[in-house]
Amino acid sequence: ALNISLFPGGPANFSTYINTKKIFKPYPIMSTTQTNKIEIIKAATSKINEVDFDNLSFGAVFTDHLFECDYKNGEWQKPVIKPYAPFLLDPSAKVFHYGQAIFEGMKAYKDDNNDLWLFRPDENYKRFNTSAVRMAMPEVPEHIFMDGLNQLLQLDEAWVKKGKGNTMYIRPFMIATGEGVIANPSDEYKFMIILSPAKSYYAGEVKVLIAEHYSRAANGGIGAAKAAGNYAAQFYPTTLANKEGFQQVIWTDDATHTKLEEAGTMNVFFRINDTLLTAPTSERILDGITRKSLLDMAKKEGINVDVRPVLVSELVEASKNGSLKEIFGAGTAAVVNPIIGYSYKDVYYELPKVENSYASLLKEKLTNIQHKLAEDTFGWTVKV
Amino acid sequence: ALNISLFPGGPANFSTYINTKKIFKPYPIMSTTQTNKIEIIKAATSKINEVDFDNLSFGAVFTDHLFECDYKNGEWQKPVIKPYAPFLLDPSAKVFHYGQAIFEGMKAYKDDNNDLWLFRPDENYKRFNTSAVRMAMPEVPEHIFMDGLNQLLQLDEAWVKKGKGNTMYIRPFMIATGEGVIANPSDEYKFMIILSPAKSYYAGEVKVLIAEHYSRAANGGIGAAKAAGNYAAQFYPTTLANKEGFQQVIWTDDATHTKLEEAGTMNVFFRINDTLLTAPTSERILDGITRKSLLDMAKKEGINVDVRPVLVSELVEASKNGSLKEIFGAGTAAVVNPIIGYSYKDVYYELPKVENSYASLLKEKLTNIQHKLAEDTFGWTVKV
Ligand SMILES: Cc1ncc(COP(=O)(O)O)c(C=O)c1O
Ligand SMILES: Cc1ncc(COP(=O)(O)O)c(C=O)c1O
Repeated sequence: ALNISLFPGGPANFSTYINTKKIFKPYPIMSTTQTNKIEIIKAATSKINEVDFDNLSFGAVFTDHLFECDYKNGEWQKPVIKPYAPFLLDPSAKVFHYGQAIFEGMKAYKDDNNDLWLFRPDENYKRFNTSAVRMAMPEVPEHIFMDGLNQLLQLDEAWVKKGKGNTMYIRPFMIATGEGVIANPSDEYKFMIILSPAKSYYAGEVKVLIAEHYSRAANGGIGAAKAAGNYAAQFYPTTLANKEGFQQVIWTDDATHTKLEEAGTMNVFFRINDTLLTAPTSERILDGITRKSLLDMAKKEGINVDVRPVLVSELVEASKNGSLKEIFGAGTAAVVNPIIGYSYKDVYYELPKVENSYASLLKEKLTNIQHKLAEDTFGWTVKV
Repeated sequence: ALNISLFPGGPANFSTYINTKKIFKPYPIMSTTQTNKIEIIKAATSKINEVDFDNLSFGAVFTDHLFECDYKNGEWQKPVIKPYAPFLLDPSAKVFHYGQAIFEGMKAYKDDNNDLWLFRPDENYKRFNTSAVRMAMPEVPEHIFMDGLNQLLQLDEAWVKKGKGNTMYIRPFMIATGEGVIANPSDEYKFMIILSPAKSYYAGEVKVLIAEHYSRAANGGIGAAKAAGNYAAQFYPTTLANKEGFQQVIWTDDATHTKLEEAGTMNVFFRINDTLLTAPTSERILDGITRKSLLDMAKKEGINVDVRPVLVSELVEASKNGSLKEIFGAGTAAVVNPIIGYSYKDVYYELPKVENSYASLLKEKLTNIQHKLAEDTFGWTVKV
C-alpha cells in the first residue's frame, strides 16, 4: 500500500490547500527581491483622441500600451511595456487546446489631485497566484506583477479620467503559450496586463434566473479560481436566460441545486429583514474582493451580517412572507448591482422598493473610498 | 409568473438537449450544400525530411499545412489551406480570457495500397458541433469540416506512414477570436485543423489513482463537451498523482466520489469475471467514439457487456474477492490502454495478469479495422 494522499482528509475548501505548506508547486519560485528592470518601448502616437470617454462600452477600448512578461526555460524573462498590439501564437499553443488561462479584474481611480489609486491590489495579486497554482501554471513574482502594473498605469495615466463614474479597468492575465497537443501542462507562459477605461458594467435593471439544471463549478473543481474555462461554461445557459429576459444567472450548487452560490462575475448578497446574508466562499465560489470589503463595511455600519449557506427555499419563503428586502451582486466590474427580481421554477418574484437600501449605502461608501472622497479607515487604497 | 424553463423537467443527460428541437442556437446555420471552394496556398518547402518518424513524441510535430476558416459578421468566411505557421491574435481575444475553445481528436491511417482512411469521422464532426453549442459557439458546416479535412490530408499525405504503429493524429479546433474583455460570447471565431504524425500515446505500464477529492466535471456543467477548460482543470490534480507514481486519474462523480466516470482523455472499462462494465455517458462524461466502438465489438465477440454506473466500492470488493480481471482506458490517442493497478484511499490494488485479455483482443480487432487489415463489417472506415 502506497501513501498517495497529499491532503489527508481532503479539506472542503480550496483555499485551505493554498494556505498549507503541503501544496505542491511544480515551478521554481523566483525570489521577489530580484528586480528585472522593465524595458519600455513607447507608442509612436496615442489613440486617446479617438476615444469617446462619455460613451465607453465595457472592456472594448484599450490604452496605448501593455505590459508583458514571458515564462520559459523555468524562468520569468525580461519584462517589457510596449505598444498595445496583436501578437503571434502557434496553432498548437496549449491555451487554445487545453484552456490553461487565468485572469484578474481590478480598477484604478483618479482623485481630484490627479493622483492614481488602486483598491486592494495585494488581494488581486494573491488570488492570481492561487488561480495559477490550481491551473498548474507558474506563479508570477510580486515585483513583476506590481512593478508592471504601476509603471503601465503611470505611462497611460492620461487615459484615467477624474470623477466618480470613471475608472480604469485593469486586466492582468496569463496564458499557456507552449506548443504541442499532448494534454499536459505547458512549459511556456505569457503574463500580460492590459488596461481598458470603463464606466460601470451593467446598465439598467437586473433580473436574475436561479439555476435549476446548469451549474458553473464542481466540488473538487476550479470554481474558486479565476480560470478562463469557468466563464465560457456559463455562456450557453446565460444566453438561454437572456433570451427569457434575465440578464444574469444565479448559480446554485451542482449536486442539489438548493444552495445559492454566486453570479457570473459577482458574488451575491441577500437581505432578509435587516440581516445581510451571503454564501461562504468555497472550492466552488470565487473569493471576491468586493464581497469581503462589503462584509467589513457592513459590520462597521452596524448591519447584522450572516455568512452561511443560503438556500433557494429560504429565499422563496422570504419573498412570500415579505421579509426579503434586497438582493444585490458585488464585483469589481459592477461594484454593487441591485437586482430587481428573480425567477425560480417558472415563478417570477419581484423585489420590493426599499428605503435605506443596503446596496445603495454600501455602494456609496465603497465608491467614496475608492475615489478618495471619504477617509479610507480600512487602509484599502494604495497610491500608484 | 413568466415561463422561463426552456427544458422543462431538466433532463439529466446533456445529449438529450442536443437531440431535441428545443435547443437554442443563437448563430445562423449555413446551408451545408454551399461549397465555398478552399483556397490552397502551398508551402515553398517541406519540413518532412527533418522529422524522425521512428521517434515521434505525441503531438509535438506538425505537417507542412493547416486548414483555416474564420467566422465573422454572422458567417463562415472563405476557407483556406496554407503553410503551418503562427498567427496573430489581439491580447483581448476572448479565448484568452473566457476560454471559449473546443477541439476534436481523430486519426487517419494508410493501408498497404497507400490509400488513406478515417475512422468514423462523422462521429467527430457531430461531437464537435455538440461541443460548439454547449460553449455558445457557432456550429461548423459539414462541408467546411469534411472538405477541409480531406483536402488537407491529401496535400500532406506523405506525412502518413504505412504500418500498424503509425497514424496521423488530426486536431480540429475552434477558438473565440473576438476582441474585448466583457464576459459574453465572442462574435468572431477561428476554426482550424492541424495534423501531427503519431505513434501510440502512452508508453509503458499505466497505474491510476481514483479521485477522492478533485473532479473534472459538474452536474449541469461542460464535462460532455470537448471544451479546452475541462483539460486544464485536470492538470493540477493529475500532476499530484504523477508525483506519487500514477500516470492518470480516474475521475469520480463530484457530488459523492462513489461512481467511476472516466480518465483524462479516455473512457474507462472494467472487467469483473467475464462481464465488461463501463459507465453510461452523461452530462459529465465524454461520449467517446472508441468507447462506443469497443462496446459494439465486444457484443459481436459474444462478451457480456453492462453499461451502468460502476461504483468504486464494487471495484475494491472485486479486487478483494479476485473477480476483478482488467481495467483499461479507451480513446483515440491511446486506443486501448491496459491499466496495471489502481490506488484508492491510500491502498494500491494490483490487477492480475490475465490470459484472453479483453483489452488485447479488442485493441487488436479495432486497430486491424482502422488499418484495413481486417474486414470492416461495421462500416466505420471512410476513404479520404
Ligand atoms: C465568478 C466571479 N465571482 C465573483 C467576482 C467578484 O470578485 P471581485 O469582487 O474580486 O471582483 C468575480 C469577478 O470579479 C467573478 O469572476
Ligand atoms: C475526456 C475524454 N474522455 C474520453 C475520450 C475518448 O474519446 P474518443 O474515443 O472519441 O477519442 C477523450 C478524448 O479523446 C476525452 O478527452
